Amino acid sequence: MSPTERVRAAYRTIAEADRPEVWITLREEQDVLLEAKAVEHRLAEGADLPLAGLVFAVKDNIDVAGLPTTAGCPSFAYTPSASATAVRRLVDAGALVLGKTNLDQFATGLVGTRSPYGAVRHAQQPGKISGGSSSGSAVAVALGIADFALGTDTAGSGRVPAALHGIVGLKPTLGLVPNTGVVPAARSYDCVTVFARELPLAHRALAIMTGPDSADPTSRDWPPATRFAAAGPRLAIPDDAGLAPLSQEGTAAFHAAVARLRDTGVTVERIDVTPFLDAATLLYDGALVAERYAAVGEFLAGEPEGADPTVAGIVLAAGDLPAHRFAADLERLDAYRAEAAALLAGFDALLLPTTTGHPTIAEVEADPVAVNSRLGTYTNFVNLLDLAAAAVPAGTADGGPFGVSVITRAFDDQVALDIAAALTGDEPPAPYPTGGVDLVVFGAHLRGQPLNHQLTGLGARFSGVVRTAPEYRMVALPTTPPKPGVVRDTAAGASLTGERWTLSPAALGTFLAGLPAPMSLGPVTVDGGEQVLGFHCDPDTARGGTDITRYGSWSAYLARS
Amino acid sequence: MSPTERVRAAYRTIAEADRPEVWITLREEQDVLLEAKAVEHRLAEGADLPLAGLVFAVKDNIDVAGLPTTAGCPSFAYTPSASATAVRRLVDAGALVLGKTNLDQFATGLVGTRSPYGAVRHAQQPGKISGGSSSGSAVAVALGIADFALGTDTAGSGRVPAALHGIVGLKPTLGLVPNTGVVPAARSYDCVTVFARELPLAHRALAIMTGPDSADPTSRDWPPATRFAAAGPRLAIPDDAGLAPLSQEGTAAFHAAVARLRDTGVTVERIDVTPFLDAATLLYDGALVAERYAAVGEFLAGEPEGADPTVAGIVLAAGDLPAHRFAADLERLDAYRAEAAALLAGFDALLLPTTTGHPTIAEVEADPVAVNSRLGTYTNFVNLLDLAAAAVPAGTADGGPFGVSVITRAFDDQVALDIAAALTGDEPPAPYPTGGVDLVVFGAHLRGQPLNHQLTGLGARFSGVVRTAPEYRMVALPTTPPKPGVVRDTAAGASLTGERWTLSPAALGTFLAGLPAPMSLGPVTVDGGEQVLGFHCDPDTARGGTDITRYGSWSAYLARS
Repeated sequence: MSPTERVRAAYRTIAEADRPEVWITLREEQDVLLEAKAVEHRLAEGADLPLAGLVFAVKDNIDVAGLPTTAGCPSFAYTPSASATAVRRLVDAGALVLGKTNLDQFATGLVGTRSPYGAVRHAQQPGKISGGSSSGSAVAVALGIADFALGTDTAGSGRVPAALHGIVGLKPTLGLVPNTGVVPAARSYDCVTVFARELPLAHRALAIMTGPDSADPTSRDWPPATRFAAAGPRLAIPDDAGLAPLSQEGTAAFHAAVARLRDTGVTVERIDVTPFLDAATLLYDGALVAERYAAVGEFLAGEPEGADPTVAGIVLAAGDLPAHRFAADLERLDAYRAEAAALLAGFDALLLPTTTGHPTIAEVEADPVAVNSRLGTYTNFVNLLDLAAAAVPAGTADGGPFGVSVITRAFDDQVALDIAAALTGDEPPAPYPTGGVDLVVFGAHLRGQPLNHQLTGLGARFSGVVRTAPEYRMVALPTTPPKPGVVRDTAAGASLTGERWTLSPAALGTFLAGLPAPMSLGPVTVDGGEQVLGFHCDPDTARGGTDITRYGSWSAYLARS
Repeated sequence: MSPTERVRAAYRTIAEADRPEVWITLREEQDVLLEAKAVEHRLAEGADLPLAGLVFAVKDNIDVAGLPTTAGCPSFAYTPSASATAVRRLVDAGALVLGKTNLDQFATGLVGTRSPYGAVRHAQQPGKISGGSSSGSAVAVALGIADFALGTDTAGSGRVPAALHGIVGLKPTLGLVPNTGVVPAARSYDCVTVFARELPLAHRALAIMTGPDSADPTSRDWPPATRFAAAGPRLAIPDDAGLAPLSQEGTAAFHAAVARLRDTGVTVERIDVTPFLDAATLLYDGALVAERYAAVGEFLAGEPEGADPTVAGIVLAAGDLPAHRFAADLERLDAYRAEAAALLAGFDALLLPTTTGHPTIAEVEADPVAVNSRLGTYTNFVNLLDLAAAAVPAGTADGGPFGVSVITRAFDDQVALDIAAALTGDEPPAPYPTGGVDLVVFGAHLRGQPLNHQLTGLGARFSGVVRTAPEYRMVALPTTPPKPGVVRDTAAGASLTGERWTLSPAALGTFLAGLPAPMSLGPVTVDGGEQVLGFHCDPDTARGGTDITRYGSWSAYLARS
């Protein structure tokens, strides 16, 4: 579909859906069509626009230049002249903004009902909540209006509505997507997220938004030791007590998801998740909620028009908390982080249900704080403990979608994606742009060979089979385990087949530091002329080996009759 | 001197010095002598005790098993059964504890007078302050009683007393030395420090204390991209306005220190240090001081015996601060950190005076808070901004010692040490145990050669000249710049001379990722049989070069007539 066609289709769906509460500001179709034409023009000129032809919705606490930002409170509104960094990066990649979506006011809530613009009803079950606070964004995606949508997530606002709608919600590591141009909720734990119906598209959009931004002091770049893939993967799951908040059907759906992962080769182990769930309570029940007062407390103290009473109640109560309790809670949080790190040691990820059930709008109205609180049982701790999460659909329970979250350490976003893809049946998504280095291996480090674990243990990622230029000889060395030696020889060489692995600079350095003689690592010319790092063998040792160049690869040599 | 002789000498000096206010708990000489005997026994059995024969003093907010910890307040005292991790590591290395030293109560002060155990007088000028809060520790070193002493440093307590006494005070990156067993002052910014009369000894002790500790959630290990040396080094210094708090003599002493560094090859550039000095005010003037209330506020609220009125006043006032101001100050701090990082970009370090002058005890008594505050002008921001510092003597001013601090980014502790050593005239100290990897270079990466900047730019450290085993050939390759190629050849090879460089795993990976053909990196056997990573050249390319093995090194080849 061309950008123009996609925009027209989106506005047809908007009209058919008849869900005005999804939007706080819906752009005029003609305005978006003009931008679609501009994208088509850029494409015709040869521009690389990886998101061309996609339309997206933006939660109304994220700036879009020229559109009001209300954060769900009309009297708070301002019209920014610049878009949030995340939005700008998407638009630069050819995506088109449809409008600004409704939310729990000041992103304070997981229900989607705390808004003077109306409670956002669930896309398929309008008597039930959409989930929040990124309610409108999730529903715009679930209704097929937008290809993807931006949310924000402090307590779970980018994951709970995804679970309730059976769509994908990616909550990256804090800071990877800059918060420039985002209205803070609790600034230390706020994170821009993305919703999409399919994992690969959510990832494509997210990958474009990541990267540091000098305007946001809390933005962070991928570290030099970023992992590109799970080693095992080994997955922690809750014990029975940890699943107690689920219904019977929910528990069965969770176990079914675990079983599917086991079938894909994931190792699973039960752990006591109490420390995670305990840490979750710090977000609202402790003094850290004072960050919300720091953000909008003075504004709400002025009793502005359109303030949501529940939100105002939570934020204003935080104004009375003493600073020493805030300090003490930060100390408790450090202890929880250490405990969580110890619990996750040896695991690639933790799998949890994303939320605990699906309340009706009436249930929320009857008990707004307690119902909201239950929804965050499995999400509230994730940002507090500096973890990343991918929320994906995992079947149905209690008459609606059921969702699980793959939760990883900070910067293990790729690991979360890969495990989530195993669950959704998608291909492992392409790596994030984390500055990895490619390495060509020819022998004992190939998949299935005895030293492959050295690569996977360092978070290296298999990036395909590769053939060298026809200028290398291979010898079989008399080592244990048996290894080939590769020597450049333009006269007598041939094209050899190996595997390309991607790893971080730190992992590459660690791998090289442990490399035994007679091996060395340096550029190898691959088919097509590109130079990629690969294994070499010292020629003196190679002279003592048996030439096996004619087999073309170590695997073929091993498989010889 | 044997451990026994050293202990006896220390107790003689204690008696001669007649400074009872230095100690809160001085151990019985006989007890320490018993431990000295035990150390001698372990040495005789062949134990590796790098600090054997050294005696040290411990600030009385750091636990030593079996001795009371008072933190400068008798009614706070408890007797720990385990030593602080830092103390245990020193004792395990053979050092002997003499006792616990006086301090500004709860480490709250930079003066050394805020203690019911008496104001600690300056070692040489008893009418003047010792500086604090690590007052007794600094004086114990300055008087020659202890070889080194432990302090703690939140606002500058490990640096200001060093400057006032003309000794060395090392304040490492936060978390490198665990805080397990240390009474918190403001826990997010507390740091164990070391005093010694000479830089190399201070560094030896500190290197033994570093390393993570699972009992302290805030402890941190060296990151995989740790720098081992300064690249330039390029040094930022304050402009004239930044030196305004100094006396005329102080300013002259500072400029003399800068001139000495220029003479050693350091490049110097003036910057506006206002953002650093502004950030400094956040430590006491904002809401972050509530961390002190979280630590000991409830205790002091009970009006305990021996509470220092100034300390109690500061801490108790922090009890009324609201949490949202704490949150807002953390946000301001993030902004200052980003600003500081931008200011330091391109520099290896910032050189500042350590403190602003040397008040008398009477001056402090007349105006305890303002005089204290001025002392922290150049130190208060360092922990807030997550920086490291080495405070070293730099001549005299106004009739006493003058000191400067080399301030670096977190984990650039080695860079700070090296620049400090250039100032004190010491040899560059041995590297911290940061998990570095050694690499042998033979040609264009040698010191003075055209590609050496690639190593220094990655924070690599020159670790000496090295000779290979007699099994390598060297050829001159027709490249630009000219390079040698080294090929292993047990038949026709010889011993070649190269240089050994130490760099982090991440730096090694980055270096390898940029390596051009025909080079590769792999183990090289050096003289003595050790295998160290080094350069290899692919044999096919080497065949096109000119054999220069007979020269024994690239330098000798270049110097040929």
